[in-house]
Amino acid sequence: MALIVQKYGGTSVGNVERIRNVAIRVAQTKKKGHKVVVAVSAMSGETNKLVSLANQMKEFPIGREYDVVVSTGEQVTIGLLALALQDLGCGAKSFLGSQVPIITDSAFSRARIEEIETAGILSELKRGNIVVVAGFQGVDRDGNITTLGRGGSDTTAVALAAALKADVCEIYTDVEGVYTTDPNICPDARKLKKVSYDEMLEMASLGAKVLQTRSVEFAKKYNVPVMVKSSFTDAEGTLVTKEDKDMEKVIVSGVTYNKDEAKITVAKVPDRPGIAAKLFAPLTKANINVDMIVQNVSHDGHTDLTFTVSKADFKKALQLVEKTAKEMKAGKVLSDTNIAKVSIVGAGMRSHAGVASKMFETLSKENVNIQMISTSEIKISAVVDAKYTELAVRALHDAFGLGKGDVEEER
Amino acid sequence: MALIVQKYGGTSVGNVERIRNVAIRVAQTKKKGHKVVVAVSAMSGETNKLVSLANQMKEFPIGREYDVVVSTGEQVTIGLLALALQDLGCGAKSFLGSQVPIITDSAFSRARIEEIETAGILSELKRGNIVVVAGFQGVDRDGNITTLGRGGSDTTAVALAAALKADVCEIYTDVEGVYTTDPNICPDARKLKKVSYDEMLEMASLGAKVLQTRSVEFAKKYNVPVMVKSSFTDAEGTLVTKEDKDMEKVIVSGVTYNKDEAKITVAKVPDRPGIAAKLFAPLTKANINVDMIVQNVSHDGHTDLTFTVSKADFKKALQLVEKTAKEMKAGKVLSDTNIAKVSIVGAGMRSHAGVASKMFETLSKENVNIQMISTSEIKISAVVDAKYTELAVRALHDAFGLGKGDVEEER
Repeated sequence: MALIVQKYGGTSVGNVERIRNVAIRVAQTKKKGHKVVVAVSAMSGETNKLVSLANQMKEFPIGREYDVVVSTGEQVTIGLLALALQDLGCGAKSFLGSQVPIITDSAFSRARIEEIETAGILSELKRGNIVVVAGFQGVDRDGNITTLGRGGSDTTAVALAAALKADVCEIYTDVEGVYTTDPNICPDARKLKKVSYDEMLEMASLGAKVLQTRSVEFAKKYNVPVMVKSSFTDAEGTLVTKEDKDMEKVIVSGVTYNKDEAKITVAKVPDRPGIAAKLFAPLTKANINVDMIVQNVSHDGHTDLTFTVSKADFKKALQLVEKTAKEMKAGKVLSDTNIAKVSIVGAGMRSHAGVASKMFETLSKENVNIQMISTSEIKISAVVDAKYTELAVRALHDAFGLGKGDVEEER
Repeated sequence: MALIVQKYGGTSVGNVERIRNVAIRVAQTKKKGHKVVVAVSAMSGETNKLVSLANQMKEFPIGREYDVVVSTGEQVTIGLLALALQDLGCGAKSFLGSQVPIITDSAFSRARIEEIETAGILSELKRGNIVVVAGFQGVDRDGNITTLGRGGSDTTAVALAAALKADVCEIYTDVEGVYTTDPNICPDARKLKKVSYDEMLEMASLGAKVLQTRSVEFAKKYNVPVMVKSSFTDAEGTLVTKEDKDMEKVIVSGVTYNKDEAKITVAKVPDRPGIAAKLFAPLTKANINVDMIVQNVSHDGHTDLTFTVSKADFKKALQLVEKTAKEMKAGKVLSDTNIAKVSIVGAGMRSHAGVASKMFETLSKENVNIQMISTSEIKISAVVDAKYTELAVRALHDAFGLGKGDVEEER
């Protein structure tokens, strides 16, 4: 008998029929003799509706009251799922974040979980009940409702699994697992049986939308095995787990892309110490994340500085940078929103040489010009013209032998 | 400087624009120097939507999880109203029932308020904030969310006013106050300036939909002055307060009607002690409220027993009664859903004779046959054929001189 935490996202509980299907799945797991805790999101579309209402009331609504409004979506789902489980004859009890309690800091709309009290849940499990917990929400130490930010339900599920020392955390979603790349671009894409926390982290932050980055960090920190699978089929999913010998053998396990960034170049920046800090300080202040940064060697005491930000922040970032550039007497500010970041990820890169050159050669062979490069221990990213995204992804997927036809034994 | 509790119903907060208007009203009250606590309902239509979702999940959904679902409507409104107030530059903080806390018993969906802790609200008022409280909901001593039943937001407001020792509880609704009768039936109907708790109680339980019965009981018990007024106009409302000399002078202050009942007659019931108890026991067990009961004098050891129930309970009640009637060897069970109860209410009845005969004469003059009669200290009700409802109401309104043209000084 295992203790299993399951998480169902907004699409999986998108209407009455689907909630009933989730209840059947949960009841089946329970019937096998397992203890089950379920974390759920709001029905798809609901959170957007609530956000839109809040935005209509006040110009910058983020804060305590915003979280009071947007946390209701999950509350509706836990009640409905508990009712559906009762209708199937299962004992079921719902818990709000404040009822568990899932204690967070007071950073409304992006709160971090500090502590989960498990006594209440454990006592319900002991009574033979299925426990249904509202994802995405918590409560601070003053009793205010908080939310964890978009995709926070993944984090709720993983944190619950960690706190309850669950055997596995199953994340049910609308895809069947983690793929070597986007199957929409590359029909040859293969579902991975296993992927390491670090690889998953890189993939998530590079644009693969399967799991929220923070939930993977949590899983890694507490060593929670996370199984990603589909809530619509019975196909086996992908296990996100700690790195093992098998994984190190594979040099590249996935190719990802992100079309959601834009590039800003400040030309002829006076090359003095502290100049980069001065340029980026206003962006930090405005809560704008800078992703890739490239600074070329200096000519005549001047250098060119290029970086990327998300498209949502682009306009604001450009304004701020143009102001600073003028102040520091730099040259022109150039920008390009028509770019894509294409990346390869793999735990095996650590111990294999020549991966980068193979990537660059592959792109070169397809006449895809590389505009920026950035690397980590287990990832190499290249910024290219957006129109080459699909071509680049397919070429890399091919070159590193990731397709179904390329491997005998799936890993 | 007064402490004022205001309550806005579902229609008054029915959309973003209306919530903004409520915020303006609340802010104006605050600007006059008053301390303001606002209780709000769910946006109109929302609770019905939530109830329908719950009903689709489980056959008899009433219970703990049902309340988790249906209480979200008010949670959305308090967050939105607090945001709207902040947008107007007012400090505002929302409270859920569980955050106040408003402590109730554990009778889900019809919980009763046991205690309200006021420290949290008082401290926010002291800081100069407007406090926005979710109507309709509370929390039991185990931390479960409870709801107070339909119209429970009125009770929340009055209970808050009692606990906070507020100077007045203002109930904002979609009518301008309490009328001598339904203005849709009788264009001559007059808005009352004052009405006693007892009169209001009778009117509420007889079908006038201005205030929930339980909220009036609460107001009477704690002597809370309740002002009923429109949230759409600035017209003066009706004050519900304790009886005074003026009120006693007026014999009849209102005519009400209720088309929502049905009549059941059991013929030839053996006239033995305990027979009525036996007949009604199954109804009580099924939680069916019996309203009027008439038993005629006995003939040949048999009697006819007639009573009314709400139309919603009619089918179930009829089944149960037919079963019992067979068991006790009574005669036929007859029923009629085509009835209406027409009532006159007035504190002055206590000290005036001949009110009943005047009522019966008035109906007789219009050829309206009376099927059942029931009286209390300050009310007389008659059941008549439903088709005569409007005629009976107008005739009584006229006979007791309740119209605009009939009084010089409004009371």
